[in-house]
Amino acid sequence: MTRRIVHEVLSDDVRRRPDSVVTEEPLEIRLGWPGQPLTRVVVTMRTPGSDFELAAGFLLSEGVLAVGQRPHTVAYCVDRDLDREQRYNVVSVTLGSPPLRHPGRRSTSMSSACGVCGAESLQEVFTPDDVPLKVVETVAPQVLHALPDILLARQPLFEATGAIHAAGVCTFDGEVIATREDIGRHNAVDKVLGARVLGTIAFGQDVVLCVSGRIGFDIITKAVAGRISTVVGVGGPSSLALDLAETAGITVCGFTRGSRSVAYTHPERIRRA
Amino acid sequence: MTRRIVHEVLSDDVRRRPDSVVTEEPLEIRLGWPGQPLTRVVVTMRTPGSDFELAAGFLLSEGVLAVGQRPHTVAYCVDRDLDREQRYNVVSVTLGSPPLRHPGRRSTSMSSACGVCGAESLQEVFTPDDVPLKVVETVAPQVLHALPDILLARQPLFEATGAIHAAGVCTFDGEVIATREDIGRHNAVDKVLGARVLGTIAFGQDVVLCVSGRIGFDIITKAVAGRISTVVGVGGPSSLALDLAETAGITVCGFTRGSRSVAYTHPERIRRA
Repeated sequence: MTRRIVHEVLSDDVRRRPDSVVTEEPLEIRLGWPGQPLTRVVVTMRTPGSDFELAAGFLLSEGVLAVGQRPHTVAYCVDRDLDREQRYNVVSVTLGSPPLRHPGRRSTSMSSACGVCGAESLQEVFTPDDVPLKVVETVAPQVLHALPDILLARQPLFEATGAIHAAGVCTFDGEVIATREDIGRHNAVDKVLGARVLGTIAFGQDVVLCVSGRIGFDIITKAVAGRISTVVGVGGPSSLALDLAETAGITVCGFTRGSRSVAYTHPERIRRA
Repeated sequence: MTRRIVHEVLSDDVRRRPDSVVTEEPLEIRLGWPGQPLTRVVVTMRTPGSDFELAAGFLLSEGVLAVGQRPHTVAYCVDRDLDREQRYNVVSVTLGSPPLRHPGRRSTSMSSACGVCGAESLQEVFTPDDVPLKVVETVAPQVLHALPDILLARQPLFEATGAIHAAGVCTFDGEVIATREDIGRHNAVDKVLGARVLGTIAFGQDVVLCVSGRIGFDIITKAVAGRISTVVGVGGPSSLALDLAETAGITVCGFTRGSRSVAYTHPERIRRA
C-alpha cells in the first residue's frame, strides 16, 4: 500500500487529501536445477507480499512443479547487479532435479488478460493433460453463498485501497484454509496454490477456490493444475473457462451474491436439499 | 456470446435455465514485413470481434507501430494447416517496412495481470521512451463524471452476460468517439487504439480514455503508446501506473462514480470552476 496526495474532483470543487493506493511492482521469477543455471522464467506485475508463494504457485500453474512436489530452495535474489530497490523483486527457485515440463511450454496461461503467453500454439491451449476430477464429496449451497463475504472480510488491502483482488480456499464445510490478495486475480490464486506447494497449508481435491472477480480460462487452468474440484466467483465465467471446466470435471459457480449462485458446470457436486 | 444451460443454486432449490456467457477465445497475432516471413508474436485471450483493431492496437501498444503509422495489410490467416474453427482466431499483419522496434522488446506490457510478458528485464519496464505530454486543453469535471455511465450504456455484451470490460475514448467536450468491449480490459483498450491505427476513428492527445475496471500499469503504458493525455477509470489505479503517468504527463482519475472522481496525477488538466 502506497500513500499519495490526491485531488477529489467534485462538480464544483477540487479537494486535496491523502489517500492509499494499491502497490504494483514487477516480480521476476528465476528457475534453475542441477546443471541448469538460474534463468528468468517470467516477469509478472504483482502486489508485494507472499512472493515465495507466488513463485511456487506460478510454477505449479505452469506445470513445472507437480502437486505434492516442493522446490529445493526459494529465495530473494542477491545479485550484485541488482540495485537495492529491485532486490525484493526477483525470486529464485531451484529444483532438486529437472522439471516435469519446461516453463513456458504448458497449456496453462498466466492471466485472463494476456491469456496464454507461454503457449506455443493454439493447439496447446485446448489440451488439458489432467484426467477429469470425479465427484467424491458434495458441497451445500449455503457454503458457496457465504464465500464472497468471507473473502471480502479478509481483504485488508481492499478495505484500504478499493482496488485489489482476492482468492481463497475453503473446505466443503465452509472452513477457510487461506486467503491472499493481489492486484492480479491470477496472482492471488497462485499465492494460495503456492502456500500449499510450500507446505504452509494442506488440502485435497474437494475444496472451493473462491475468486473476487470474473472466472476466465486462466483461473480454471490453475484449478486444473492444482486439482481443485470447485471454483466460485463473484463475477461470471467465460465460454472457454467453461469448456475446460466441463472436460476437467470442475464445478464452476459464478455470480455468487447473497443467497444465490449460478452453477455452469458439474452441478452434481452441489448438495440438493 | 455463447448460450448455455445453467443451474441457479438457491438455498433450498436448484433451477435449470438457459443463460448467456461471454465468449473467450485465443487470438494469435502474426507479424511480417519485406524479407521477414509471418511469425507468431503473441496468443492473447479475447472476446471475438474487432480482431483487426485488436491486432493493430496491440502492435501500437508494443511499440511495433508508431502513432500515425498504418500496417500494410491485416487479414485472417487462411493456412491450410488451420482447421475451420481456428481460421478466425489467427490474424496476420504485414508492414511495408521493418518495424521501429521488434515485438516483445518494448517497455509496455500486455496486461495488468501478466504485466510485462514482453519485457526482457525489470529495467525495461521502467523506461517509457515518450516525452511527457504537455497540458494543452483542460477538461471539465462534469465530462469525467459522465463517462462511466456513457460507457455502460454502450455495453451490449455486459447487458447480456454481466462479465465483460469496456474501454472508450471521448473528447474533452464529452463527445464519444468510440467504445469497445472485451473480456480483457487491456484488449478493450487495444481495440479502441487499433480503430485509430486503421483509420476508422481519429483523435489527438487531448481525449479521455475511459476503462470499466481498475487502472493498472498496462493501461497507462497503452495511453503512453497512444499519446493520450487523460485516463479515467471506474476502479482505482496502482502505484506503478501512477509513477508512469506522473512521468509521462498523463492525468489519471480513478473511482469515477456519480458526481465524484479522484485525480491522482496531473490535476492541472482538470478545469476549475
